[in-house]
Amino acid sequence: MTTDLTLLSNARSERVRSVRSLGRRAVRQRQGLFVVEGPQAVRELLSYAGHAARDLYVTSSAAERHTEVVERANAAGVAVRLCTDEVLAAMTDTPHPQGMIAVAAPVDVPLAEALSAAGDGFVVVLTNVRDPGNAGTVLRAADAFGAAAVLVSDASVNVYNPKVVRSTVGSLFHLPVSVGTPVPELLHACRVAGLRVLAADGAGTTSLPDVDLSVPHAWVMGNEAWGLEPEVRALCDDVVSIPIVRAESLNLAMAATVCLHASSSAAR
Amino acid sequence: MTTDLTLLSNARSERVRSVRSLGRRAVRQRQGLFVVEGPQAVRELLSYAGHAARDLYVTSSAAERHTEVVERANAAGVAVRLCTDEVLAAMTDTPHPQGMIAVAAPVDVPLAEALSAAGDGFVVVLTNVRDPGNAGTVLRAADAFGAAAVLVSDASVNVYNPKVVRSTVGSLFHLPVSVGTPVPELLHACRVAGLRVLAADGAGTTSLPDVDLSVPHAWVMGNEAWGLEPEVRALCDDVVSIPIVRAESLNLAMAATVCLHASSSAAR
Repeated sequence: MTTDLTLLSNARSERVRSVRSLGRRAVRQRQGLFVVEGPQAVRELLSYAGHAARDLYVTSSAAERHTEVVERANAAGVAVRLCTDEVLAAMTDTPHPQGMIAVAAPVDVPLAEALSAAGDGFVVVLTNVRDPGNAGTVLRAADAFGAAAVLVSDASVNVYNPKVVRSTVGSLFHLPVSVGTPVPELLHACRVAGLRVLAADGAGTTSLPDVDLSVPHAWVMGNEAWGLEPEVRALCDDVVSIPIVRAESLNLAMAATVCLHASSSAAR
Repeated sequence: MTTDLTLLSNARSERVRSVRSLGRRAVRQRQGLFVVEGPQAVRELLSYAGHAARDLYVTSSAAERHTEVVERANAAGVAVRLCTDEVLAAMTDTPHPQGMIAVAAPVDVPLAEALSAAGDGFVVVLTNVRDPGNAGTVLRAADAFGAAAVLVSDASVNVYNPKVVRSTVGSLFHLPVSVGTPVPELLHACRVAGLRVLAADGAGTTSLPDVDLSVPHAWVMGNEAWGLEPEVRALCDDVVSIPIVRAESLNLAMAATVCLHASSSAAR
């Protein structure tokens, strides 16, 4: 399929409203689609999960600036539609979609498949992360530091929330992500897979430098205040804190960055 | 001085407009004042820099919820003014100031004083950080991991920007911060103070695990994309990168968190 040169110019069309409605979780679930905004994220989608890409909406100027993205979409059989700035702006709540939006099918994998990727490495479990930016940053850290997979519980923010997708800057497409499993089942599955289950918690009793990260393990991340519910902690093999000078000075994204960097260092 | 029980109820008063105008940098500079929002940040202001606090505006319900903050303000001789929810909302752009705003004088210290705190430890230099949330996170990391001081260049975001103050969650008051010095002077002063000057840069040629962090040092942080201008790198003793699996997956706040955690670990 090649670029459809008919310029989409009606910002009130059914198609525009349909794309915009994917900002809502219920609509995403019903339609089995989500949006990926901006050239960098779209490029990563096409490179790592091209099979999931459905449509690419792009302004003429963005198509000129990012010819390689458009070519890659064409090569992958994705329908490329040129549209006006107004149409693109009407498709999203993002202040600056940078002239490009893709619509894609979900990229998550079944829990068993994500866990089978763990091998002798480590995975990350998001139990109760509500802020899209924090979830995105943890996904980036997982990607940067070589986690084998990310397991997102049913109580966490939806990873197809446009703000999560945006803040992962493509990391969502780089490693296996599973979604929707309740926390107790997730932790049980990790243990069955032979992973040592480590809770990251500001009130943890084991200090990070004392933890053996050379064995396969799962990092369990709590809510934004970097704390876990007692019943979740009880399901973990160890509760780990990062030595800091002052309490309350780390947030979840910072704590996850430090823990995953430590796992990455231990693996080298 | 004790709490003035006259309820401020006129959201259009000169006083309300005056507090609100402190959201603008030029006004802050002219008046030599800035705002601190929310009970946690106000508590830290009073605990660590009580001398700088001038006025506390608080709603009746917040005063009841946080009696210890109000008592501490009274003890510090800060004028406490009760106000309506409408007045408090009109004083700030913040969606949720949580019923409490303090007005304070600047808390930064001269560069020489900040550097004299370094001793055999480490400091953080912000050369060109524009995003308030990133600057705040780096300040939190500096606080959490025991940096001796933070030196903010004249090209970085103003630390009294309400969004920076809010995102530091009190860390701004916990350690010496200097502001307003041009980058070349900052780096020269660090070297004169006996600090090894380390640039943190995604394109760095020295890997973080290979850096000797047991000597006194300064971490030089660039812009949001975690990169430094060539002329700034040329002024540093070493350019350090963090080993990662994929490029572009760390942002400035994450990189700073990892580097400062490494310094903290080396100091133990």
